[in-house]
Amino acid sequence: MNKGRLFIVSGPSGSGKDTVLTKVFERKPDIAFSISSITRDMRDGEVEGQKYHFISREEFEKMITDDALLEHNVYVDNYYGTPRKPVEDCINLGGDMIVEVDVNGAAQIREKMPEAVSVFIMPPSFEVLKERLSGRGTETAEQIAERLANAVGEIARSVEYDYIVVNDVLDDAVEDLIAIMRIDRFKADRQTELVNEILNKAKI
Amino acid sequence: MNKGRLFIVSGPSGSGKDTVLTKVFERKPDIAFSISSITRDMRDGEVEGQKYHFISREEFEKMITDDALLEHNVYVDNYYGTPRKPVEDCINLGGDMIVEVDVNGAAQIREKMPEAVSVFIMPPSFEVLKERLSGRGTETAEQIAERLANAVGEIARSVEYDYIVVNDVLDDAVEDLIAIMRIDRFKADRQTELVNEILNKAKI
Repeated sequence: MNKGRLFIVSGPSGSGKDTVLTKVFERKPDIAFSISSITRDMRDGEVEGQKYHFISREEFEKMITDDALLEHNVYVDNYYGTPRKPVEDCINLGGDMIVEVDVNGAAQIREKMPEAVSVFIMPPSFEVLKERLSGRGTETAEQIAERLANAVGEIARSVEYDYIVVNDVLDDAVEDLIAIMRIDRFKADRQTELVNEILNKAKI
Repeated sequence: MNKGRLFIVSGPSGSGKDTVLTKVFERKPDIAFSISSITRDMRDGEVEGQKYHFISREEFEKMITDDALLEHNVYVDNYYGTPRKPVEDCINLGGDMIVEVDVNGAAQIREKMPEAVSVFIMPPSFEVLKERLSGRGTETAEQIAERLANAVGEIARSVEYDYIVVNDVLDDAVEDLIAIMRIDRFKADRQTELVNEILNKAKI
């Protein structure tokens, strides 16, 4: 049986990454989503095991020691990470999985699983990015400037990814991501099994 | 303006490559097809400039000397080759082009244009390959054995390609090839212009 594949999806604040992913999962309910383990408190409306597993610092630190995480980061004094086992189980069973992480997390996963396919969701222009970040209307000018600086920092590392999908028209970006997941299985290095089978039979 | 892309398509006798390509061009009439220059005599039903340019040995040898070919081969005492200029003109104008060559030709083009995307059309199994090659009913057992040996030799080099499309169900293979041509433009290294534009504006 062919193994499944891990797709790493990143995108700065203002790229529309979350909306793209929501639509992709609506269209492709068979794709699994990697649930992060985090140590911060649960917020209103959040449900354990939906987007996050809420665990203690001690539990998290044990996972680090046990090398049980594909990546982890610290953000505002809390740990965020991707547990390794659910990803490996899914892939070994032939299933495809998406993990949503920032550029740091993506770099860590790439190191541990070089066969993962990474996609960066990109705003169509600097102007649109600025507009999307200002448009929320709930933040100060300083907060917007900080978000913008972070977004630009992430965009500078977008070249580390296999694919860049420009999110200008939402439905197009959704189609693009789905097509990437379809096409990646035709990469030549994923077809060695068939090639070897034909070559072996030809020798008989 | 973004440059166009060159797609190298190969596939052994029995892969169904020609049928796949005919359907792709029906669906995507905007994709250009590279016309080979050859020195053999024109056969019944062939038209100058449709699939081939029929030229003299002297003209062909001058093209070799002038480095005016992306690849060339000798087959049964005749030259076959891909003229460089029409390919470069098409790509510089932003158009996409398909060139159909064997594994040797593909390797030569890859060396001259490493950015070309290569796709190998693969039969779904050794049994189907054998059946397709025998099914023509117009050839001797020796001719079939020779074709089979050639096909297997080409399949052994399929790993040199970017993508392998298995032609089991014709319409699926056609869809796969079209999707590869769509998706390839999302490769991260083709988006440097947009990335640089955003980064430059962010500095202002």
